[in-house]
Amino acid sequence: MSKILSDIEIARMARLKPIQEIAQSMGLKEEALEVFGKYKAKLSYEIIEELKTKKDGKLILVTSINPTPAGEGKSTVTVGLGDALKQLGKNVVIALREPSLGPVMGIKGGACGGGYAQVVPMEDINLHFTGDLHAISAANNTLASLIDNHIQQGNRLKIDTRKILWKRAIDINDRALRHVVIGLGGKTNGIPREEHFEITAASEMMAIFCLADDLADLKKRISRTVIAYNIHNEPVTVKDLGVEGALTVLLRDAIKPNLVQTLEHTPAIVHGGPFANIAHGCNSIIATKTALKLADYVVTEAGFGADLGAEKFLDIKCQIGGILPNAVAIVATIRALKMHGGVELKDLHINNPKAVRKGFANLRKHVETIKQYQLPFVISLNHFVGDFKEEIEEFIRLCEYENMPFAITKVWEKGGQGGIELADQLLSVIHEAEEERTSYQPLYSLSDSIEVKLEKICKKVYGASCVELSINAKKQLKEIEEAGWGNFPVCIAKTQYSLSDDPSKLGRPEGFTISIRELKPSVGAGFVVAYAGQMLTMPGLPKYPAALNMDVNENGQIKGLF
Amino acid sequence: MSKILSDIEIARMARLKPIQEIAQSMGLKEEALEVFGKYKAKLSYEIIEELKTKKDGKLILVTSINPTPAGEGKSTVTVGLGDALKQLGKNVVIALREPSLGPVMGIKGGACGGGYAQVVPMEDINLHFTGDLHAISAANNTLASLIDNHIQQGNRLKIDTRKILWKRAIDINDRALRHVVIGLGGKTNGIPREEHFEITAASEMMAIFCLADDLADLKKRISRTVIAYNIHNEPVTVKDLGVEGALTVLLRDAIKPNLVQTLEHTPAIVHGGPFANIAHGCNSIIATKTALKLADYVVTEAGFGADLGAEKFLDIKCQIGGILPNAVAIVATIRALKMHGGVELKDLHINNPKAVRKGFANLRKHVETIKQYQLPFVISLNHFVGDFKEEIEEFIRLCEYENMPFAITKVWEKGGQGGIELADQLLSVIHEAEEERTSYQPLYSLSDSIEVKLEKICKKVYGASCVELSINAKKQLKEIEEAGWGNFPVCIAKTQYSLSDDPSKLGRPEGFTISIRELKPSVGAGFVVAYAGQMLTMPGLPKYPAALNMDVNENGQIKGLF
Repeated sequence: MSKILSDIEIARMARLKPIQEIAQSMGLKEEALEVFGKYKAKLSYEIIEELKTKKDGKLILVTSINPTPAGEGKSTVTVGLGDALKQLGKNVVIALREPSLGPVMGIKGGACGGGYAQVVPMEDINLHFTGDLHAISAANNTLASLIDNHIQQGNRLKIDTRKILWKRAIDINDRALRHVVIGLGGKTNGIPREEHFEITAASEMMAIFCLADDLADLKKRISRTVIAYNIHNEPVTVKDLGVEGALTVLLRDAIKPNLVQTLEHTPAIVHGGPFANIAHGCNSIIATKTALKLADYVVTEAGFGADLGAEKFLDIKCQIGGILPNAVAIVATIRALKMHGGVELKDLHINNPKAVRKGFANLRKHVETIKQYQLPFVISLNHFVGDFKEEIEEFIRLCEYENMPFAITKVWEKGGQGGIELADQLLSVIHEAEEERTSYQPLYSLSDSIEVKLEKICKKVYGASCVELSINAKKQLKEIEEAGWGNFPVCIAKTQYSLSDDPSKLGRPEGFTISIRELKPSVGAGFVVAYAGQMLTMPGLPKYPAALNMDVNENGQIKGLF
Repeated sequence: MSKILSDIEIARMARLKPIQEIAQSMGLKEEALEVFGKYKAKLSYEIIEELKTKKDGKLILVTSINPTPAGEGKSTVTVGLGDALKQLGKNVVIALREPSLGPVMGIKGGACGGGYAQVVPMEDINLHFTGDLHAISAANNTLASLIDNHIQQGNRLKIDTRKILWKRAIDINDRALRHVVIGLGGKTNGIPREEHFEITAASEMMAIFCLADDLADLKKRISRTVIAYNIHNEPVTVKDLGVEGALTVLLRDAIKPNLVQTLEHTPAIVHGGPFANIAHGCNSIIATKTALKLADYVVTEAGFGADLGAEKFLDIKCQIGGILPNAVAIVATIRALKMHGGVELKDLHINNPKAVRKGFANLRKHVETIKQYQLPFVISLNHFVGDFKEEIEEFIRLCEYENMPFAITKVWEKGGQGGIELADQLLSVIHEAEEERTSYQPLYSLSDSIEVKLEKICKKVYGASCVELSINAKKQLKEIEEAGWGNFPVCIAKTQYSLSDDPSKLGRPEGFTISIRELKPSVGAGFVVAYAGQMLTMPGLPKYPAALNMDVNENGQIKGLF
């Protein structure tokens, strides 16, 4: 057997097509592109406007069960599924999130897929790409500096320095910046106060960016963003500060969607990248909408399990953006099923069909969740080379017994060819729908109260028996409703490892309570964040960061990037 | 008379040529470029290697007298001079620094020149450009996070947390980050310690970047960088941490020089951007060397007055890079001469030939300085629309009386046409040199001791009568010499407003002492920073930041960017 190649080795062997050729295959003229090197481009404002009159394609969301720490290969399946649809002669565009640099240097790895199902050039995409995350960090921190400067220069708006909501952000895993004191050093160096850096992927600026409909809407959202309260406890906005123009200037280019390709030359739009546990976890609305205008089938993903990414995709992004999804692929792996069946991480390599059966309960819950959105689905078992035949047979038996459409995907190993079965199944569930119309229904209506929204998500999606708000959260709820933000969707910050708010509760926990300790209005983004437990908005680096393995030779060739 | 247009209005009216055409005019093939949109490109590693065998062109440095807070228009003259040389049929490339985003949002404005002597697209260059500064910030802060993480994870290297030299950086004017405490919040959130953010343009990572000869040299410099001392007071380097590879990976693309054009289609390489008062103030060595291979004449600038930018260019950059300059243009303005003649800023608009004569002393000192480097020079009076005839006549009288070659330049108003006289004069002083060879001599030899270097700069360039080291600086000097860094050049951090270290001493102060309060080895960059007075490495925002005037419409058209 030949040596297993690393992702970067496979990516480097690929013969990429010039990005103009990819654009041409989508019916785009060269003028529609702003190219970045040979293999990356941004789409111009003009083409995005021009496309608006076109009919939308069908939208397939890829989600997963609650993942192991290594992830279930959702991006890999998304890429492979896109390639498979292309092999079947479909006009397809993939829509992914942009990776954050923090985890790239830390532990998780990139977000370009893996094996033979990757978007490329993976080194560029995983590093600075077209600079979008840097621009978002710059806009975020320019605002933070303008706030502190406003206070320093006389504080005309009477901002209460103990009630500043806007935080600084950096696209790096940096635990030491979680809790800091700034403005020390005397009168000329600002006002001393507590500050907390977030990773850019968890910032409100990222959420605003991803939920904006166009540049004008982006400015409107930035403008209304509540940055602090004044000494009379009234909200202070970016508009009050008068800097919405400058901040939008900083995002003028970033907001244009990025076009790249897969190893099989399928077009991929990679744009926006919020985390799904502490933010809403989907790529940008502009990117998804543009992709839907450019293709008959769009494959996209939302971060972590269906309790987080898919719920937020279906309730927040689709409702804010007026986006109608058509079908869902739910990714599972034998490893994750065994973990939910009670097997410890160190024993996941051992053959254990019984644990697969036990852990299937977790998958079953996510299937039920997707059914509540009235969406057809196909389960995708993302096949790993180390999976045992008996385990896979057990999985198949369970799916067949419970009458769940499924496919075994081998896209990591085989690229699009390994996803043909999944693609076929998804096409057939979409075509079964009457006149091919989606029957999608969000879980809640925006006019529901915040409490009702929380109840619906926690009970129907997580399977909790009750939701408890802390005294603090109750007070905040009252303030939010009084301020007229009660019609915002809710974005719950919760662990990705369990359906509950306790990462150790694997499988399908029942009878648990979700405790909401804090509610925070993200007025610019247009949602209310509900914190279920102590969620970190700034990751740390591990004992052996991935950075230790990386190198580059004198010709710029990188190694050790996965 | 027609309305005076703003820089951005002039820039927007310009008909830019596709960057490929500009490259072609320099003899570069399309494969040599990595294009960023229609009007920006990076030059590939391959072409930079390929060019190394070619003969160097002539190098003209543009410097100035001690500036007013608004600056003397050095970049404008640099651009206009390049355009003028092109109009004279010369094969010319301009080499400039990249702007920092901090001052763009603050007060100073951009760094693309002005009026009809600009590099374009100015909006892009002044904002994120090709992302180089963001990449440098990311590399800087990834290292900072890796250092704190190393300590958190057991501190194998026994780093003394009270002696960490490496600071975090951000490309924003943010006074509240000058003095901070990080790592608060208990055991999982790092080790509490003092930290000081610098603006990226003042960071050692920027200096390393600009002084590297190629990617391999960049890695070598990063590798040897001293980040802290251990508990035995021994230096700890990036190599000890084992992350030089990852940090170089982050700079792999940034290190390629950026190609743009002037309004008159003269090629301009814009790359690297350290400040000149708190850093060494020149564009990258890679960019300058590449420009010299591509043109018969290269025009470049160094920040602030000749006491800062030119001194550092001639002693640090030229000695480290093995670069041989051929001539210097010294920019003066009537406004600055009057300021040095004792006129207050609010009265600079009043006709005052007498003050011009008095302030001429400042210019005279800078001329003497340049003569010490054995370089021919031409004084360039950067003409302003509000200058009075009598003032200009006085200036001309003084130059003629003192036998100083000079030219009145009107490049802001007329583009290259307004710089023909300056270009002609410079060509003639270059051609007067025997066999057109440069007679350039640095002020000091690298083998001089640090103290001798300090003495030479302070006495011969600033005109001080003596240099005083604080007790602390003396101790540091001893440590630096013991560590074997005594052969590094010296980079003095000093106010730009005066030849002395006191910004209120205008004109040509005499009999003053330069007090060095601290010496810091920048081992990666390869120089010793000497702090003359309390220099801020992180600027603040003013009462009315430029950000307040900026806006962008729904088509992405920016206004208020100067």
